Formats: sequence, C-alpha cells, structure tokens
Amino acid sequence: MYDLLLQHVDVLQITNGVPSILSRHDIAIVNRRIAAIAPQISPGLARETLNGEGQIAIPGLINSHAHTAMSLFRGVAEDVPIEEWFNNFIWPLETNLTPEDVYWGTLLGLAEMIESGVTCVADHYFMMDVIAQAVQETGMRALLAWTLFSGADESDQLARARQFTKQWHGAAGDRIRVWMGPHAPYTCTPSFLRRVAQTAQELGVGIHIHLAETAAQVTQSLSAHGRSPVVVARDAGLFDGPAIAAHAAHVSPEDIAILAGHGVAVAVTPKTEMKLGIGVAPVMALREAGVTVALGSDGAASNNTYDILESARLLALLEKLRSGNARAMPVGATLELATAAGAQALGWQNEIGVLHVGARADLALVRSGAAHLQPLHDLAATLLYSAQPADVSTVIVDGRILMRDRELLTIDKPRVLREVAARIERLTQRQTAQRIAVYPDARSA
Amino acid sequence: MYDLLLQHVDVLQITNGVPSILSRHDIAIVNRRIAAIAPQISPGLARETLNGEGQIAIPGLINSHAHTAMSLFRGVAEDVPIEEWFNNFIWPLETNLTPEDVYWGTLLGLAEMIESGVTCVADHYFMMDVIAQAVQETGMRALLAWTLFSGADESDQLARARQFTKQWHGAAGDRIRVWMGPHAPYTCTPSFLRRVAQTAQELGVGIHIHLAETAAQVTQSLSAHGRSPVVVARDAGLFDGPAIAAHAAHVSPEDIAILAGHGVAVAVTPKTEMKLGIGVAPVMALREAGVTVALGSDGAASNNTYDILESARLLALLEKLRSGNARAMPVGATLELATAAGAQALGWQNEIGVLHVGARADLALVRSGAAHLQPLHDLAATLLYSAQPADVSTVIVDGRILMRDRELLTIDKPRVLREVAARIERLTQRQTAQRIAVYPDARSA
Repeated sequence: MYDLLLQHVDVLQITNGVPSILSRHDIAIVNRRIAAIAPQISPGLARETLNGEGQIAIPGLINSHAHTAMSLFRGVAEDVPIEEWFNNFIWPLETNLTPEDVYWGTLLGLAEMIESGVTCVADHYFMMDVIAQAVQETGMRALLAWTLFSGADESDQLARARQFTKQWHGAAGDRIRVWMGPHAPYTCTPSFLRRVAQTAQELGVGIHIHLAETAAQVTQSLSAHGRSPVVVARDAGLFDGPAIAAHAAHVSPEDIAILAGHGVAVAVTPKTEMKLGIGVAPVMALREAGVTVALGSDGAASNNTYDILESARLLALLEKLRSGNARAMPVGATLELATAAGAQALGWQNEIGVLHVGARADLALVRSGAAHLQPLHDLAATLLYSAQPADVSTVIVDGRILMRDRELLTIDKPRVLREVAARIERLTQRQTAQRIAVYPDARSA
Repeated sequence: MYDLLLQHVDVLQITNGVPSILSRHDIAIVNRRIAAIAPQISPGLARETLNGEGQIAIPGLINSHAHTAMSLFRGVAEDVPIEEWFNNFIWPLETNLTPEDVYWGTLLGLAEMIESGVTCVADHYFMMDVIAQAVQETGMRALLAWTLFSGADESDQLARARQFTKQWHGAAGDRIRVWMGPHAPYTCTPSFLRRVAQTAQELGVGIHIHLAETAAQVTQSLSAHGRSPVVVARDAGLFDGPAIAAHAAHVSPEDIAILAGHGVAVAVTPKTEMKLGIGVAPVMALREAGVTVALGSDGAASNNTYDILESARLLALLEKLRSGNARAMPVGATLELATAAGAQALGWQNEIGVLHVGARADLALVRSGAAHLQPLHDLAATLLYSAQPADVSTVIVDGRILMRDRELLTIDKPRVLREVAARIERLTQRQTAQRIAVYPDARSA
C-alpha cells in the first residue's frame, strides 16, 4: 500500500548540475519516503491520490539561512545601511518581542515559505522553543539554532541551548534538528566561541554562524585579533564538526581554503546582501574550491520575502554579470543550490533536496500552465527564471500534505494574520537606547 | 456621472521620488481620465463601481523596451552568450515566424503583461501591423516601432514604416503611437540611420533603438567609425527628436553628456543584461547627468518574464550592491522608473505613470493581504520588494477594465495558449544558415 500517490507529474531531477525531466510520471510515497517513481503506478494500491497533471514535481526548496519570525519586521527599515539597520531599527525593535510574538511571526514566515515551495529552513533566532513548537505544529522541516551573544550570561545561554538541543534535536520524527548558533565573531569573544564549539562537539551537533558579512567586519577582526573572521572561527573549533557560514561575503583565498578544507557550507543570501550593499560571496571561487554553496533568505526585515527561487535567480544573474559570462551558474547548477546543496549544508544530504527513491518525501508541485510560463521550451529554466511563488500549488513534507491547491492545511492563516496585525503597533515602538546588541561602527575599525 | 468608481483603495503617489499613500480613498474615472481622488465619492453618481478594499492602487507599470511576441521563445536559449543567442538561436528561429505567429505570441505576452500590472509597452519588432492589431483588441497602450535593418531593401522598409506610422500613430483613441525603430548602429549603416532620422522628423515621431549593449559593440563602432554607438546615433540625427536608447550599458562620460543634452531616455533591462552577462548601464551616473532612466523587459527569450516590478527590484538591488550604498536607488525613486519615468521616456509624461486628477486612467490594483506582504509597515517597499505579479488583481487602461479579479476580459487566454502550443514544434525548427541578421563576432573587433 502507498500512503500517497502523485499522478501524472513532470518530475525534475538534477544530476551533477544537469537537469532532466521525467515526463508524466507517478510518485508513490510510503512511510514518509519516496517509494517509487514510474510512468504508471496502480492507484488501487494508494490510500490517497493526487492528480498532478500539468504540474512539475520539484524537490522541496531549502532555505539555508533565515530568521523566520522577522516576517514581523518586513519593510520596517528600508534603504538604510547595515549599522543603522541593526542599531536604530532591528535590535531596538527586537527587544519588544515576547515569545508569543515570535511564535506568531514564525507561523507567518512559515506560511509564506510553504506557499513558495520551501520545505526546510535553517532558522537562527532567539526564543527558539516557541519556534520549535511552530515548526512541529506546521509539519515543516527545520534546523534550529538558538542565537548566542557574548555577555554576562554566557553560561546561562549555553545551558539553555544545551537544554533546547536535548529536548528538540531529532524531534517530530527527525523533522527538527538543532545546531548551536553563535551569532558572529564580532558579537562573540573568541573564548565564548570556543565554549560554544566544545558544547556542539559534546552534543554531536553542528554550528550555524554569521561570518564576514561586510568588509568592515574583516577589517575590525584583523585589527582586534590579527585574524580574519573565518580564521577566528576555525581557531575556536567551530569548524571541527558540520557548519553553516551565513554570508561569507568577504573571504580571502586563505579563508576559502579553510572553508573548503573543513567542509563548511556557505549560505549566500543574495537579496539581503545586495539590498544592504554589503557585498555577495565569491560564489564561483567558493565552488571551484569545493565549498558547498547554498541559498538563504535571511530575515524578511532585510530580504522582504522568503522566496528561495528568487534568491537562486538573483545569484545566477549576479554571477553571470560579475563574470561577464552568460554560461556561469547555469540553470541546473543554480537550482541545485536551492535543493541538493541546501540539503548538504544542513546535514540532510541524500535525504532531502532530491526526488529519488528512498529520499524523504519533501517536494512541491508547480503549475506550469500560466501565461507567464508558456510555452515550455525548457522546464528547468522556466522554474528558475519565470515561475512565481503563486505557481506552487501543493507542498509535501515528510509525506504529509501541508498545502493543497494553494490551501494551507496545517496553518490557520486568517488567525495568524489577525494575531500579527494585533501586535504591530506595540512591536514598532522604537527606543534605540535599548538593544539586543550593538553593531560596531565601521569608522572605529 | 462617473464611468467607473474605484472605492476604498490605498492610492500610491510618488512626488520627486518620495512615495506617499492616500489611505482608503475613492478614484472616479470619467471619459478615460481620472476625474477625482477623494476619501469618499458618492457611488450614486457612478455607472459602475469596483470595491478595492484591501488593495493598493498604483499607476499602471510601463515597459519601456520589449519584444512582446518573443514570449514564443521563452526558455529557448538559456545560458548562452549574446553572439550564440542571436546567431544560433533567435535570428534563425525568427525566420520561422508568420504574421499569425507574431499575433498570437503578442497576445500571449500582453496577457502576461496585464496579469503583472503593466498597462503600456514600447514594443520593437517586425510584422508590426499584426502587433498593432493585437494591442488595439486587448485595450493595452503601446508605443510601436517596426524594426529596421540595413540591407538591399532599405527603401522598402522605410516606405512600410512610413505607411505603418500613418495608419497607426494616434490610433485607438491615442492608445497606440508609432516611432521609428532602427535596430542598432551595428546592424544599420550611418547613411541608413540618417534616412531613418529624416523620416522620423518628417512624420513628427521619435526613435527607439538598441544602443551600446556590449563592450564589444563599442569597440567595433570605434574601429569601424572612429566614434561610439551613441555618437554615431547622434551624428545621424537620431536624437534630434524624442528617443529611447535601449540598454546603453557601455557609455562614456561623453556619451552620457550627449544623451542628457538631447533628452534621450535610456531603457534599462536589468534582467536580460545580467543574464547575458553583457553589463548594466551606469544608472546612477545617467540620472545624475539628468538622463531619464526607465525600465524594460526586453523579449522573453532573454528576460523570461514581462514583470516590470522584477526589473525595478533587480535594478535597485544591483545599484545598492555596485555602489556599496544601501541608500542608493531608494524605494520611491525606483518605483518611479517603472511608472513616471517610463511615461517620460515614451513621450506620455503627465498623461500616464501617475495617479493624479486629469491623468489617463491607466492603473492596477494590488491585493495587500497575502502572507508574503504582511504586515504592511511600508506599503511602497512591500510593492517593490515583496509583491508578486499574482498579487495584481485588476488592471485598467484608458478607463477600461482589462483584468478584473485576475480574470482577463479582453483576451481569450485558453485560445491564446492553444494557438501558441500548436505552433511550437514548427517554430523551434532551427536552421542556422537562415537568419534575420548576423551578430558580429566579438573577436573580429
């Protein structure tokens, strides 16, 4: 018996960066995994069938770096540089957040993610316990990291992160995993980073950290430590296990060699990095060195959407422009960043990000009939360069349908929108004297 | 009496690059123009009302450079450099086109444009008579230019363009205007460009031309003529009247001064220019010099969509990245490129691209309630950075509703999709010996 049978879909597969399509195939799901992909599978053996005619089945998209609850602050700080963005807007505003706010903000962000075909997110935030609860309830897959800052309460933070890891790592049938989330080398001392790394090693989990976002951060690190942020992180032991470095926009050839040598994945968030004018990682050089490059959305306060196909499109367009080479970041390789490479970055390689027999049933169906997608000369290119999130009709995670024909089945969206609306006036009170942390002034470097 | 009354909409206005919102206003339309904008207008005076609650009224978006019928070739030539794109794909494929193909391809492209809030397009193609027919039937607004190439039949081409201009310039209640469309200085001789300029002057119309798309084109022009493409165009008299220069990616300070001095508008097509890796115009320098910069989609064979908000978003992101300044191309100024600046470029300034009393009633309503748009801290930023074409619900051109609640009222979309599908196999037969023109090999420069 099959738990779910998807019928008559065009199945996107990507092998070594080369996309191919299995036309009009069926996909059978058993026990949360893909059990069969074939031209015709008998529906008599299926508990539930879903007619996917005229739709493309794609691996669920993977968001490798996000702050999902920041959906609450979408559009709150536009056209401002990163120092002002942090010090005058985001960090003061975040002091307003209660666990209930974070819970509803996360649900809003997850609703948007599911509606755009994202099935897994690496989330880096605080009050992570309510975020884990939201992920569990919605049926999403997530890698969660509780953000840690240096300060007087380092030991308390570590104890809380340790407790959170024990409670949630592997929870919800392994849909939820937990890594350690030191914020960044500019907000954590080297000795705190070392304690975080040791805790991660003890617990057998990885590290998710912001790294070398701006040129000024590198200058400041060289001035304070005589080493780049990447070297500081390496020296603290953060790369002794699996790790995601978010941004890594400003890395030297030596930094790149370190990332490659330690198997550190880089999560590029092109929209945020362009919008804040801080620079985008040298993706071609990273990939040539063997670094896994994945894609993230960052928070909606800088990125404005959780649309990972938009991130993929931006990155390919930017790399073609920067290299002056239209062949750079071709369609298949770019789609891989948002799927298989994301899985690799999050430690879920071969389990998600691919549509193969044996993989977890995390996938999205995309309607291909709209005027803006027709005619279909190249289905993979159409996905990357023409599709909109609204073309995603159905999303399945771990074999469970989370959205069917654009209807969210696990999130009460009207209630989420009401709860968020009710909180906005209080959340936008800004007292800049009160901040989560202080972003260092670039001029002090 | 009002012909149409839009009720309870949030009205986006932009003045000198600064956006403002008139909350919950009504817009009355009389005789194809906006007759009143006020908090409450009596519906008793309206022949038809439309409840726009929860929607943003924006000026209809203006696509300042497109080849609409190239929707037929969406995705046909991916990840290839411009020489190969032209010589091995587009120009051979275009020899397959019949007038009927161009007609249906144009309808497909116009359907996509209307569905994404575009109300006016500057189209540059051939078999322009069937394109004019399609524009007339759909109710769109367009500035049409019949593409001209140097060759043995220059006089015939000029005669045809002259005849086309006489027939269609000012047609459909002035929804359709015609300019001359010399293809580019690399496909037209200086003497032919001079004849085109003289014809345009005689007819009292402007010029729409491709200019300085690639660095190689500039090198070739310097080598062949001792002058840049901009100087060649100026010397031919192409800038003696109104003109749109598409791309202008590679312009010197002298070129920029010429464009500014002659009031030539530049239509930037950022997605195409990034995707082909050919470079994007120095938008900040052009604007500082006083050049009107507008936005285009180019054809779907390079751009893959006709989504002008996507072009606007790309341009702002790119300028922030290139300048390292998050304040560059702020939200209001960027939205202006897609609206008022487009109107200026096409010679329709103050008539379209603005929501003011007296302007033509060309506008779109955008639903603001979706999860990916909420909460609404900054409505203009949400439009630019979060909205999708699918959020556009209703489109009005010249006071006539072309789309209502996502339903196209002037295009039989199922029939268009069927007609396009029936043509694709024939249209994708590629015989590279047969071409519209030959793109010069960069190495020959």
